[in-house]
Amino acid sequence: MAGNAPDRTINLDHGDPTLYEHFWQEKGDRATIVIPGWQSMSYFSDLGNLCWFLEPEFAREVLRLHSIVGNAVTEDRHIVVGTGSTQLVQAALYALSPQDAQEPISVVSAAPYYSAYPALVDCLKSGIHKWAGDAAKFNKEGPFIELITSPNNPDGYNRGSAVNRTGGKLVHDLAYYWPQYAAISSPADHEIMLFTVSKSTGHAGMRIGWAFVKDREVARKMVKFIELSTIGVSKDSQLRAATVLKVVSDSCEHPGPASNQSLFDEVHNLMVARWRRLRGAVKQSALFTLPDFSPAFCRFRGQYFEPQPGSSSAAFAWLRCEEPLEDCQVFLRKYKILTRSGRQFGVGPQYVRISLLDRDENFNLFLERVSTMDLPQSAQPEERFGS
Amino acid sequence: MAGNAPDRTINLDHGDPTLYEHFWQEKGDRATIVIPGWQSMSYFSDLGNLCWFLEPEFAREVLRLHSIVGNAVTEDRHIVVGTGSTQLVQAALYALSPQDAQEPISVVSAAPYYSAYPALVDCLKSGIHKWAGDAAKFNKEGPFIELITSPNNPDGYNRGSAVNRTGGKLVHDLAYYWPQYAAISSPADHEIMLFTVSKSTGHAGMRIGWAFVKDREVARKMVKFIELSTIGVSKDSQLRAATVLKVVSDSCEHPGPASNQSLFDEVHNLMVARWRRLRGAVKQSALFTLPDFSPAFCRFRGQYFEPQPGSSSAAFAWLRCEEPLEDCQVFLRKYKILTRSGRQFGVGPQYVRISLLDRDENFNLFLERVSTMDLPQSAQPEERFGS
Repeated sequence: MAGNAPDRTINLDHGDPTLYEHFWQEKGDRATIVIPGWQSMSYFSDLGNLCWFLEPEFAREVLRLHSIVGNAVTEDRHIVVGTGSTQLVQAALYALSPQDAQEPISVVSAAPYYSAYPALVDCLKSGIHKWAGDAAKFNKEGPFIELITSPNNPDGYNRGSAVNRTGGKLVHDLAYYWPQYAAISSPADHEIMLFTVSKSTGHAGMRIGWAFVKDREVARKMVKFIELSTIGVSKDSQLRAATVLKVVSDSCEHPGPASNQSLFDEVHNLMVARWRRLRGAVKQSALFTLPDFSPAFCRFRGQYFEPQPGSSSAAFAWLRCEEPLEDCQVFLRKYKILTRSGRQFGVGPQYVRISLLDRDENFNLFLERVSTMDLPQSAQPEERFGS
Repeated sequence: MAGNAPDRTINLDHGDPTLYEHFWQEKGDRATIVIPGWQSMSYFSDLGNLCWFLEPEFAREVLRLHSIVGNAVTEDRHIVVGTGSTQLVQAALYALSPQDAQEPISVVSAAPYYSAYPALVDCLKSGIHKWAGDAAKFNKEGPFIELITSPNNPDGYNRGSAVNRTGGKLVHDLAYYWPQYAAISSPADHEIMLFTVSKSTGHAGMRIGWAFVKDREVARKMVKFIELSTIGVSKDSQLRAATVLKVVSDSCEHPGPASNQSLFDEVHNLMVARWRRLRGAVKQSALFTLPDFSPAFCRFRGQYFEPQPGSSSAAFAWLRCEEPLEDCQVFLRKYKILTRSGRQFGVGPQYVRISLLDRDENFNLFLERVSTMDLPQSAQPEERFGS
């Protein structure tokens, strides 16, 4: 990190949610947690629960927030807590993969898919599951697991299954299905649904996610996986997550004046403003395009989410560079802007994913640079064919 | 948990370190951590560090405590923090397993080995490593990884490599190499050494472990594994671990009167007293035997650790039932005592592992029952041969 020099490198590769710091700074002591040395020493949190390492206080606040937001059906589900939703994806894969099949089950996701999926599935060269790429191109016989991120990381679109047949086991990653990023059209109702504090409250450093799981046996196997891989989940972070989720729920039920909005309103407004400025800068540069979004009714707000077609509040900008530019990541790196290449999401290098969750000073500097970008000499058509 | 009824079930299956609660209750506010809502929101802890999710304050306190205790060489090592040492074992396996070998590398450990190892290695049917059982019986050609727990879980003995040849890659799990359990004979000096707060300070619920790794490339791959599997390690728990490690170090450097001993002295004295009573009860029952330990000089205390041969302060009792009893776990279960069978540690059912880290009331009740045990009718030799 090169301090605050105007020519410093801006790292927008990761979705590091430091944008949220401002909200939490304003909350003061209400969001502070105090843990005495003798507390939470045991491995166990709730011996009577299928998920024996789930802190009851955390589970209560999870249920309360979903009930306020209306983004997920939570009745008759098992809650499984994980070390971030990353661990829960792996737990779900473990639970859904047959242990005694002839060959590993195929795992697919529609491109552009979350860049971590291929390595998550294949890092140990598992004999029970295997990454099989783009769900839209999947045409193998037999069972499969489909990972569905909705709204999608990186492009922000709402998604359903993309495989052209039934018979798949579906895992829904709903990390971005919160009112600051998307219209809450109805409570999501799927077999396995994953959420995380990283993207709902901005506490990425906690490493806390949760799953709602319909089937008891699937939930039991997910718990078994987390037991094997980390013997449960940090209690300290679960307790802290309970505290911050409570503050978010309170901020919705007792919203204050403009200076004391709910987390969803404050971050939503910030995101909409960032997107408006980003669209302006991108239009001015004429080098890139951004996805368009359709207006949608948000039941949480009781209003249309996007009165102006084309505006957005998605967590990432999925930027496409236009001809003659070919590699968007390489081009932006010349301006000391680090992004994640479309190649990592299963598409071409003309795309990059840019985090819009960074602090103001980084976002502003990024926009300044985008506004003043020119086609480099080497990317001019005549130059390219001349060398 | 059936409350405090005298006939309630006593669960000594897990090594749940609730014995430590008393020490931490006495420390009061010194061991309390306060985390405001805006702190530690980012994924990143230390961008300049190979282990980018390692909290610098935690790393400092780890180094300070090892320097006081003298149980590990820490110079010129990389520190990798993990979600408990369980995650670090897997990270080490990932780092040491060739990615492009013809067949998975064999992973071994001398029986009785830590009961979680086989499932840890094989749960995903990995193509890069495979559980190959008892190190002492391993006679396959080619490379291998040996997991060495010293002092050993379950039997408390000090250990070195048990494979009858060189060429192995060794992982040393030193979770119990602390002065409350064992004589610190010299600073351990190995390629990969694992430690955990669960067994050093008693904070199992934190899920925090750390590794000292000599080789930079191995450390880099371990970090990569933790990045893939959980995108780092809870910052809240790392910060809390830093706080409690500091209190432990302070308790060593500024020990108070008997009522305010260092953690190592207090827990050591408790363990020695428990072992003395356990040996008495076991001797009285004549149904079981316990391991014997040799006296050893502890450099941390500057004195012989075991002035009375046969006494001990190990975390587990590795209990063997004698003829005509055959299945120690089944026998103890009749007295509502839950233990872990020797079968899970790669040996026979005549053994069980019993946690000695539970709260006083459970340990006392356990001893009472052991003292009054009789051979059941069905286990009498005449009965067994008659049916």
